[in-house]
Amino acid sequence: MRDFSQDHRWLSLNTATIRKSRGQDLPLTSILDACAERGIRAISPWRDQVHAVGLAEVSRRIQAHGLELSGYCRGGMFPAADAQGLQAALDDNRRALDEACELNAPCLVLVVGALPGALQGQAAHKDLALARSQVRDGIAALLEDARARRMPLAIEPLHPMYAADRACVNTLAQALDLCDELDPRQPGASATPALGVAVDVYHTWWDPLLQAGISRAGRDQRILAFHVCDWLTPTRDLLNDRGMMGDGVIDIPRIRGWVEATGFAGYSEVEIFSTENWWQRPHEEVLDTCIARHRSAV
Amino acid sequence: MRDFSQDHRWLSLNTATIRKSRGQDLPLTSILDACAERGIRAISPWRDQVHAVGLAEVSRRIQAHGLELSGYCRGGMFPAADAQGLQAALDDNRRALDEACELNAPCLVLVVGALPGALQGQAAHKDLALARSQVRDGIAALLEDARARRMPLAIEPLHPMYAADRACVNTLAQALDLCDELDPRQPGASATPALGVAVDVYHTWWDPLLQAGISRAGRDQRILAFHVCDWLTPTRDLLNDRGMMGDGVIDIPRIRGWVEATGFAGYSEVEIFSTENWWQRPHEEVLDTCIARHRSAV
Repeated sequence: MRDFSQDHRWLSLNTATIRKSRGQDLPLTSILDACAERGIRAISPWRDQVHAVGLAEVSRRIQAHGLELSGYCRGGMFPAADAQGLQAALDDNRRALDEACELNAPCLVLVVGALPGALQGQAAHKDLALARSQVRDGIAALLEDARARRMPLAIEPLHPMYAADRACVNTLAQALDLCDELDPRQPGASATPALGVAVDVYHTWWDPLLQAGISRAGRDQRILAFHVCDWLTPTRDLLNDRGMMGDGVIDIPRIRGWVEATGFAGYSEVEIFSTENWWQRPHEEVLDTCIARHRSAV
Repeated sequence: MRDFSQDHRWLSLNTATIRKSRGQDLPLTSILDACAERGIRAISPWRDQVHAVGLAEVSRRIQAHGLELSGYCRGGMFPAADAQGLQAALDDNRRALDEACELNAPCLVLVVGALPGALQGQAAHKDLALARSQVRDGIAALLEDARARRMPLAIEPLHPMYAADRACVNTLAQALDLCDELDPRQPGASATPALGVAVDVYHTWWDPLLQAGISRAGRDQRILAFHVCDWLTPTRDLLNDRGMMGDGVIDIPRIRGWVEATGFAGYSEVEIFSTENWWQRPHEEVLDTCIARHRSAV
């Protein structure tokens, strides 16, 4: 396992982590500057943050700073209540693919969606199997475009507490089953697959089959991204109470060890949503803490 | 599948559902009276509620009302930071077994526990595998006493969002693996097993392997209890924001259909924790709503 204690060369910042500074929106341009100043070499930007600045401008600044991407956040949200909605989701995902290519991302991360309308508080139906079927079909359709653009898709299994409204792919095994069905691999194939997974410790740490799933994913080079933060006790909000690495109960080094044992040698991407804590603080303090904790707790 | 639309003879009330009425604690005696008045035939009481009244008095009232139990809530919480803590947990579980026998419960429900100290906000360690090993050993030890008393133990897999602080058994498959290891069944055995599971739709509805797990559980008569409530969107609190059946996104009849297809013909136990909603209302209204929703949404 790589030694992270001496530097932060394998730290990537998911830009949601400092989307607010002192409780106020922080533009992506300021985020890029702050990362570059601290020698953070990689980021994973969110689409809404990119759109607010403009794709061309973001692309230019990323190149000027010499930054890499560890992923592009995010495509997905495939299920819909009608054919028009399904098509609109697919069209939007194709635009996300184009943006990922423009930004030279290594993969487009997919938060696959769940029951249509649930995120707005009123689910159109309760048929989780239907939502999962629409996710499968959506990924299958998008995969053709992804292959044509040589832009891998990374399914991110989300914690089961998001099964209703954000993602109905909730375990690594379930994500890998989708990968094997839609993008079968030849034994021993070495090229990056067109379809893989993003493993986030926050979403997966509880899973009794996690170690086995990581090994399985690694055998086919399916691990396209590795995300870290921490699970707080108590957790006060289902979405926006993620903890800084070291402040919670996840044994992050153990999980990173499993991931790296498969040959993964990419970035550890810090992705924290924190309405009450980190988003209230100065982003400079947040970044410095991310760097310190990357060394001590990842 | 049984028709629940005409009566509520298969409704059981988990007494946590009205542990508060109009925001104030409601004694178990009042809960028993209110259930009996409405023709609710079964309850599943919590230990703290029983202790507040006294075991003998509760037992007498249950018999006087002709009430049955659908389970006794709860044993478990096996992991501890030291040998003394492990022993204390086991001793307490043996007392819970005695109480379950006194109350003529069909099973003692186990919420197995997780990282010691996490429920109090400060986990003693982050070794989830160790906690799971202590759970296994704790159930194995308790199982001897349970067999001697002919009181089945029902492992309740809890939603993964409780993996840190309440239960590190988080899927039905994981619970059934424990059952098979600790209480192997002969093919075709018909007697109630010493170790089984409590299937709660709130904890398990998201699981892509749920239907398969229910079938597997049913083959060995492992389903000792079936609990219902609903998953709200949004869910505002990880513990105390469970919804009334029909108010959320869980397809409860579909899951009940899977359960009953295995031969299960017991109670549907309503278990709702709701600080901001149902616990603020008059318990009479809550019970009447449970009865109506049992008919229309379970």
